Amino acid sequence: MSNSEKHRPKAMETEFPVRYAETDAMGVVHHASYLVYFEEGRSHYMRELGNDYASIESSGYRLPVTEVDIRYLGSLMYGDHVRIRSWIEENRSRRLSFAYEVRNSVSDDILVTGLTRHVWTDLAGNVSRIPEELRDFFASNMV
Amino acid sequence: MSNSEKHRPKAMETEFPVRYAETDAMGVVHHASYLVYFEEGRSHYMRELGNDYASIESSGYRLPVTEVDIRYLGSLMYGDHVRIRSWIEENRSRRLSFAYEVRNSVSDDILVTGLTRHVWTDLAGNVSRIPEELRDFFASNMV
Amino acid sequence: MSNSEKHRPKAMETEFPVRYAETDAMGVVHHASYLVYFEEGRSHYMRELGNDYASIESSGYRLPVTEVDIRYLGSLMYGDHVRIRSWIEENRSRRLSFAYEVRNSVSDDILVTGLTRHVWTDLAGNVSRIPEELRDFFASNMV
Amino acid sequence: MSNSEKHRPKAMETEFPVRYAETDAMGVVHHASYLVYFEEGRSHYMRELGNDYASIESSGYRLPVTEVDIRYLGSLMYGDHVRIRSWIEENRSRRLSFAYEVRNSVSDDILVTGLTRHVWTDLAGNVSRIPEELRDFFASNMV
Repeated sequence: MSNSEKHRPKAMETEFPVRYAETDAMGVVHHASYLVYFEEGRSHYMRELGNDYASIESSGYRLPVTEVDIRYLGSLMYGDHVRIRSWIEENRSRRLSFAYEVRNSVSDDILVTGLTRHVWTDLAGNVSRIPEELRDFFASNMV
Repeated sequence: MSNSEKHRPKAMETEFPVRYAETDAMGVVHHASYLVYFEEGRSHYMRELGNDYASIESSGYRLPVTEVDIRYLGSLMYGDHVRIRSWIEENRSRRLSFAYEVRNSVSDDILVTGLTRHVWTDLAGNVSRIPEELRDFFASNMV
Repeated sequence: MSNSEKHRPKAMETEFPVRYAETDAMGVVHHASYLVYFEEGRSHYMRELGNDYASIESSGYRLPVTEVDIRYLGSLMYGDHVRIRSWIEENRSRRLSFAYEVRNSVSDDILVTGLTRHVWTDLAGNVSRIPEELRDFFASNMV
Repeated sequence: MSNSEKHRPKAMETEFPVRYAETDAMGVVHHASYLVYFEEGRSHYMRELGNDYASIESSGYRLPVTEVDIRYLGSLMYGDHVRIRSWIEENRSRRLSFAYEVRNSVSDDILVTGLTRHVWTDLAGNVSRIPEELRDFFASNMV
């Protein structure tokens, strides 16, 4: 296995219809809705790989968002389906980044790209190390 | 076919995960999110039966909501999946009602029930009759 | 004081601009946004009368919504200001109802009316009686 | 007037209560809500300076968001009031950037900072120059 392959993160895709409530008076999906799509992409990623965020929270950890970057290249309308690809971009002992690509499910054009940075905290909000039991999970999904 | 069967509307079900953004500080899905779930149930219903709302709008008609009733019997949390059942409750020449049942996909308990009433309008917002080409569609889904 | 005056509930008004994110592809405020406006009307009511909901929650009580009714008579657009009037419609030992009227702040036309029913619960979600210290508050605001 | 003063953009502040619907199961304002706060800050800015976005749209122009950056330093809860400061960070012939600082209205701590980049387009979505009649407005608010 080449080095570049070894470090290529695994990506997961999920797809769902645009909701009417997510559109705005310009006739397209409101720009803030993409942050909710990213969250759904990230949730799907963790659910599918067997470590859903709900169980992480119930074991006493949280992953609040510390930074967001979004680039808008195109738009989605009601009637379209969102296709979102999510992967772990960075995995450190105290922080984690997810990257995202949002596509129109029919044209497959990339419409929005983004990055969310997170820190590991306990329930009181104090920064902590990544939970022991999740180290292997996140490390293996980077390879 | 008995009379009661003849008039039993067809119902459609769809299922999707609760989004973190839909929860509130009580730890459960915020009560306004169910109105968005209803909309997604209704959208799914029409998409599946071949007359999606996007194409209705592009043919010059709209179905704005004129009335909403919701009863909350239980709650959903992040980690749960929403199962929503939607059907046409009333179908008149100028108006339409959809009814909904929201369940937890695992327990199958009914958590929220609701009704949305709509009128047919043109793009300018004037009340109109149901589009000719949709009469059969809605009538047949009532039987 | 006449009997009808004695039982007329106190109403409170608040006003704020429509947010672009609250509109949808029809060009008007999405029907689910009014439930958030009602919540803001109710929050304002309690804040102004000295018993904000944040302090009720921190003293161990909650007022989850059990029922919602909304009637839509007109619409609001981006650029409009929402004027919302809220009052206590019913005040029982275990439950409470708020009623609402949403107006366009310029035309003063009533656009949306609604009712939310609530129960008093403890933090575990068990139905409880109205907190002792709030009995007088809610009773006096009914008179 | 010194050169640095000459180019210091005018900033506008607005303040409003956190809405319960904006919180999430972590007990704090959901990270996507800040993008809506930025939009409200930007809307307030333009309304106050006499060129509200509603009238810009009705004169045939739009300012869609092309890029978003957000940094989260702290959090807000239900019961807090949002204080948001907005200013024009960049003003070119075809594009515009707004910057934002969100504070807790009581502690005055900066909790979230952000930037939104926009392009001028016509109603069909084609990139255009800034409308002639707005050139002076935006230029003067940079000085």
